[in-house]
Amino acid sequence: MASALSKPRSSAGQVSSSRERSLVPVGMATILPHAAKQVRRLEEQLLAHINRWGYDEIILPTFEYLDVLAPGLEPELIEHCYQFVDRTTGRTLLLRPDATAQIARTVAMGLTGATLPLRLSYRTSVFRYATEHAGRGREIFQVGAELIGLDDVTSDSEVIHLMIECLQAIGLRSFKVSLGHVGFIKGLLLRSGLSAQGQKLAEQAAAKKDLPRLEEVLACEHISKAAARAIREAPELYGQEEVLARGRVLAAGDPSLLAPLERLAYVYQLLCAAGYRESLLLDLGEFRGFDYYDGVVFDVFADGMGAELGGGGRYDHLIGRFGRPLPSTGFALDVDRLFRTIEFPDEESVPSRVDYLVAAPRRAARRLTSVAAQLRRTGVRVVQQAMKGSDSALMPTAVAAGLAQQAAAVVVVGVPGMGPDDVLLVEPLAAPASSRRNGSLRPRTKKISLDDLVAVARRSLRPLSARL
Amino acid sequence: MASALSKPRSSAGQVSSSRERSLVPVGMATILPHAAKQVRRLEEQLLAHINRWGYDEIILPTFEYLDVLAPGLEPELIEHCYQFVDRTTGRTLLLRPDATAQIARTVAMGLTGATLPLRLSYRTSVFRYATEHAGRGREIFQVGAELIGLDDVTSDSEVIHLMIECLQAIGLRSFKVSLGHVGFIKGLLLRSGLSAQGQKLAEQAAAKKDLPRLEEVLACEHISKAAARAIREAPELYGQEEVLARGRVLAAGDPSLLAPLERLAYVYQLLCAAGYRESLLLDLGEFRGFDYYDGVVFDVFADGMGAELGGGGRYDHLIGRFGRPLPSTGFALDVDRLFRTIEFPDEESVPSRVDYLVAAPRRAARRLTSVAAQLRRTGVRVVQQAMKGSDSALMPTAVAAGLAQQAAAVVVVGVPGMGPDDVLLVEPLAAPASSRRNGSLRPRTKKISLDDLVAVARRSLRPLSARL
Repeated sequence: MASALSKPRSSAGQVSSSRERSLVPVGMATILPHAAKQVRRLEEQLLAHINRWGYDEIILPTFEYLDVLAPGLEPELIEHCYQFVDRTTGRTLLLRPDATAQIARTVAMGLTGATLPLRLSYRTSVFRYATEHAGRGREIFQVGAELIGLDDVTSDSEVIHLMIECLQAIGLRSFKVSLGHVGFIKGLLLRSGLSAQGQKLAEQAAAKKDLPRLEEVLACEHISKAAARAIREAPELYGQEEVLARGRVLAAGDPSLLAPLERLAYVYQLLCAAGYRESLLLDLGEFRGFDYYDGVVFDVFADGMGAELGGGGRYDHLIGRFGRPLPSTGFALDVDRLFRTIEFPDEESVPSRVDYLVAAPRRAARRLTSVAAQLRRTGVRVVQQAMKGSDSALMPTAVAAGLAQQAAAVVVVGVPGMGPDDVLLVEPLAAPASSRRNGSLRPRTKKISLDDLVAVARRSLRPLSARL
Repeated sequence: MASALSKPRSSAGQVSSSRERSLVPVGMATILPHAAKQVRRLEEQLLAHINRWGYDEIILPTFEYLDVLAPGLEPELIEHCYQFVDRTTGRTLLLRPDATAQIARTVAMGLTGATLPLRLSYRTSVFRYATEHAGRGREIFQVGAELIGLDDVTSDSEVIHLMIECLQAIGLRSFKVSLGHVGFIKGLLLRSGLSAQGQKLAEQAAAKKDLPRLEEVLACEHISKAAARAIREAPELYGQEEVLARGRVLAAGDPSLLAPLERLAYVYQLLCAAGYRESLLLDLGEFRGFDYYDGVVFDVFADGMGAELGGGGRYDHLIGRFGRPLPSTGFALDVDRLFRTIEFPDEESVPSRVDYLVAAPRRAARRLTSVAAQLRRTGVRVVQQAMKGSDSALMPTAVAAGLAQQAAAVVVVGVPGMGPDDVLLVEPLAAPASSRRNGSLRPRTKKISLDDLVAVARRSLRPLSARL
């Protein structure tokens, strides 16, 4: 392994496409500073928005006991979890594969108090064995919200409304929220006469929109042609209002099918009234992957991203599995996929990484620290660096360091022969690439008093939004 | 387990003091909303401060391969890691027990590019089997910074200066940074004539300031009385400048002992010049727990917290263990311990959880959403809720909901007989407890136009700092 590590750097960062052993697990990519800044900004925008709707963040443990969390997890999901034995208790621990189940467990335990409704948010990683995802498929960054204790239509629409506002707030341009109700297709299956096992298999096939598989399942049992036709048709019923009309025909007056349709129609109307019709797609085959959903459910998709960016739905019976029945709904967004979908502003507009590099010969280390501190107090971003070498090399090495650090300007203090209150300012250093190409903005060096420099720094402060 | 879960809530939230199995692993406490808000604010303050010094955040995977990370970890730390087998590769994975080793691995792989010096920051959890810590001893929230590629004294002082500024920025009042140099005591041990094994055992005893154990180790081998005396004395040499003077006596002209002392003295002078003398404590026995430290090292302590709040030091040889030798230094702070040490502002000053609860009868759900959205656009925090029940119950249930949600005011829309642009405003609801006790601020209900309400909301906006 030591030899693999001392290989040329260019190959070390790649993910195991070659025959050598990979250095980091596939799907656990490191997020480097430039991307990390954008990912954190995304997270913060999402949480600020969710906060404004009265949702409070909760922080949950990264791993917990499998036996305790299991009632809230699909058997299939448990198979995709990272599990390990707790040395101190001998019990099986698992890395959280899903935040909603953990919140359900926490609420059922009474940790969040008795006040209802409860609005909770989270930002977290969930962990799953997964090969199908690109990027960070094993450690999935999520931001989400849960509305607990309400079962009415407005709570369904609230979480979807909030999620859409979040997506708009972060600048996602074209996306579709696919909206369905698991009760419709479950109702169709239930009244079809399929066995319990057949219903389950048909559900799974419908959830994946795997029509050949659905056909196969239906062919195994003797059910009426009309029932089979309706089941076959449901996964293909997506669009606008006409979907509801066709659904009512398939319901054929059965109240257990009409109820989910009416609920879905009402949520759809509320969201259309809020101005979101263009972002909505009704989908009577919409199912989500999780068995705990039992009402209105939804997924978000965007152009250019094959997998969903997030989704959610109603899970009225999940918290009850932990001993405290409470109706609930919520959503989660995949921060990494959002990051890869969104177009970020042109880099040219923010050319510098830091505002000032303050440099000094080593003997002037105290002065260096003091000047850097005074500049930072104005709010600008300052790197300080003591320079090796002779005094004659001071200016060129300081400018080289400023360029390497992508500083907008260099401040040199402790230059021999200069007054104690004066510094040398070299700027602009990191001008936009276009003007550098023109040669119109060459860096100039000028003597300036520290007081004036601090005043300039205060004035030049870029707005906070461009600095994060 | 199901029976344990359906027990009375009061016991479910407790950590396993009784004989029943605990529901969450000890040391993995959930952070509930009120505390989570403060923890997140702490993290953000720390990172904002670190950012201003030119450090960029990096996000690292939560687990990685043991064989790859092992060169950067103490054998003792590896024994305290959570390890599990990767189902897809059969290799052993471990939950990150330490961020510095992971950053060293990342930098050595060349992922962060060739520009030096490199300033990186992180906020993350590290995971360790630990019984001695209170609170979140197994999942430890850290914020930290690493300065990579510089070996001079100013880089030593930079990270300590930055750490002290961070502690002051979050309002920590009285703390001490204990400052030492591992080279001094290592030098004493080396020239004492102790065997390599004896030196290692003596180091471990000195690091824990376990003087009886140190005595025992020294007694096992035949070394000169003077050498033994010096070794015994070092762990007790802490204080101000006099410690350096005494150290020079013990060094007895040996350059390998004088060099660390002079380096330490210079760093101490730079930090004193920056005004931090009161926060510093020289400690020639200071060692840190990690074997990778090889220069100036430091710990932070505060009154009322037995364990250190953080610390760090120079680790010039760590990144080299991964194949790319680079001098480095850095620090990490334990966010949970900071949270438990800091005094937060009196709750009375921020009595409400949300600014407005907007309520409406269910039939007015569209209007409810629209009014809430208009209020939120001003920047206030708004919970919206559709109310069940008769029109006559509307006002009392809305006010009760506002009190339960700790709203500062309640807005009721869709009240029968009111104009479409009017709402009812009930305030103040969540007045400070003191004025509630006086009865001086009873909630009043008044009719107000939506435009006026929005104007009031805009004016009443609390400063952002009080809202996070």
